[in-house]
Amino acid sequence: MTVVALSGGVGGAKLALGLSRVVPADELLIVANTGDDFEHLGLAISPDIDTVMYTLAGLANPELGWGRHDETWSFMETLAAIGGDTWFRLGDRDLAVHVERTRRLHAGETLSAITEDLCRRLGVAPRVLPMSDDPVRTRVRTDDGWIDFQDYFVHRRCEPVVHELVFHGAETARAHPAFLAALSDPRLTAVVICPSNPFISIDPILALPGVRDALADCAAPVVAVSPIIGGRAVKGPTAKMMGEFGMTPSASAVAQRYGTLIDGFVVDFADMDQVASIGARVTLGQTMMTTLADREALARTVLGAAAVLMNKPRR
Amino acid sequence: MTVVALSGGVGGAKLALGLSRVVPADELLIVANTGDDFEHLGLAISPDIDTVMYTLAGLANPELGWGRHDETWSFMETLAAIGGDTWFRLGDRDLAVHVERTRRLHAGETLSAITEDLCRRLGVAPRVLPMSDDPVRTRVRTDDGWIDFQDYFVHRRCEPVVHELVFHGAETARAHPAFLAALSDPRLTAVVICPSNPFISIDPILALPGVRDALADCAAPVVAVSPIIGGRAVKGPTAKMMGEFGMTPSASAVAQRYGTLIDGFVVDFADMDQVASIGARVTLGQTMMTTLADREALARTVLGAAAVLMNKPRR
Repeated sequence: MTVVALSGGVGGAKLALGLSRVVPADELLIVANTGDDFEHLGLAISPDIDTVMYTLAGLANPELGWGRHDETWSFMETLAAIGGDTWFRLGDRDLAVHVERTRRLHAGETLSAITEDLCRRLGVAPRVLPMSDDPVRTRVRTDDGWIDFQDYFVHRRCEPVVHELVFHGAETARAHPAFLAALSDPRLTAVVICPSNPFISIDPILALPGVRDALADCAAPVVAVSPIIGGRAVKGPTAKMMGEFGMTPSASAVAQRYGTLIDGFVVDFADMDQVASIGARVTLGQTMMTTLADREALARTVLGAAAVLMNKPRR
Repeated sequence: MTVVALSGGVGGAKLALGLSRVVPADELLIVANTGDDFEHLGLAISPDIDTVMYTLAGLANPELGWGRHDETWSFMETLAAIGGDTWFRLGDRDLAVHVERTRRLHAGETLSAITEDLCRRLGVAPRVLPMSDDPVRTRVRTDDGWIDFQDYFVHRRCEPVVHELVFHGAETARAHPAFLAALSDPRLTAVVICPSNPFISIDPILALPGVRDALADCAAPVVAVSPIIGGRAVKGPTAKMMGEFGMTPSASAVAQRYGTLIDGFVVDFADMDQVASIGARVTLGQTMMTTLADREALARTVLGAAAVLMNKPRR
């Protein structure tokens, strides 16, 4: 592998798609957060893996930001009619992935092996890897106490104030060996932290034993893309959470929080006023990804930043 | 309860629908075979319960003979695309029932409580009761050895020659208490054995401890409807199995096999030549149920036969 990308859901998947169009498939590893994973209706659901997989397969639903664009909703309609839980919406086609994944997990296959096979069948060329085959579950402390992540994120629509996050199981989960192997590959040219929520999409990956050390020791620069543009998150609760954690929602605050973990930080041209506070490691670019060309251009910007950093002393 | 009906799938469900239109809802108990139940893709599937439930709810698919008429197939299409098992077809709406039932079973609810609630929500007025809340699984001995029922019935399309059937778990399963209570109700006026396959739909019910005794001791006549018309089964492998078991596929052979269990036997006018061999307990009627009126008429014929028998010495 020459490029490793760490990704959460929508924003991360967009950049992963951009990267997949400028990096040869066998040189790109996309590591997806699994802290969002949960069991619902008896099914094993991996929202970030699926968003990345559907996005790379050209199947993602751009309006919803989750699920598939060619979806039907008969299952959900009927589930509502028979009194089932409908707060987490599952399309009929999406459901096939959850049912099949659950069946295969119960049969003893690993999440990574299942993901690899699903990606192959859906025509996804680069490897999409769960950060771990061991379960990690993000939990959120709110005014109502500790709740499961999807309860916070989907059921309560990120409305509760977040006081604290834990990644249950992360201390003992093993980062996927292929992830650690990729980070120690001497041919590595860039580690990309996608513009995902640092607290709920990237931190669970960083919480796995050995990951921070492997990032510090790897041959390539670590370049993050700001999920904040002009003080706002493109999608999701990043800015809201930053406020709740006592931070100013800004690109520079994200850079500061990543601290010495990152070598480079890509911010939007709209955040030119943040350049001074971020410092020498900043790269300006267009980080708002509306079109496919935007995704490709940002991928090139990030890889370019890494190439420049490769020739400088780091950290 | 004044009427108890024992039912398998399609044929039984048709007569159950007829009965539901001529017997007050709170006086009719439909007991469904669960020997066909199985786990598939991690889901608990109860084909006969569902066929009865969908039929009484006006949701059944008359072309397929299983599932719903308002069905969509996105799940199955996608499951095929990702390499899942597709020999047992599950529609998107049907799937909601299986997923929700499985979830509730895993949460500790009984199959009967779940069935009762699903029926209520789908607007089914009479009580549909699984024969037992304990698992009973029909297995089939073929030239290839013992196989699961649905493997024989759906996957291999009833093609293998059947040598033997067992109802795994039946010896220790408890007939549902409400089933036994209904059979001992002094107000009972008829026990109806629907025109279902005797070997795979009715025998599993009869195999439960106490059921044969309760039928022998009950206050009402037991009246069966022949699943064979003119030497052929309306649907399914009844005639084929009879041949494989060394019986002539005929209404009278079915009556003979039920033996002293039944007090009355309803055969189609087409089988008038069987009357002599069946004997005094025979009633002629139109047993082919094409229209809703046919279902109602057959229900009246069966209840009429029971009413006549009620005034005769029995067995």
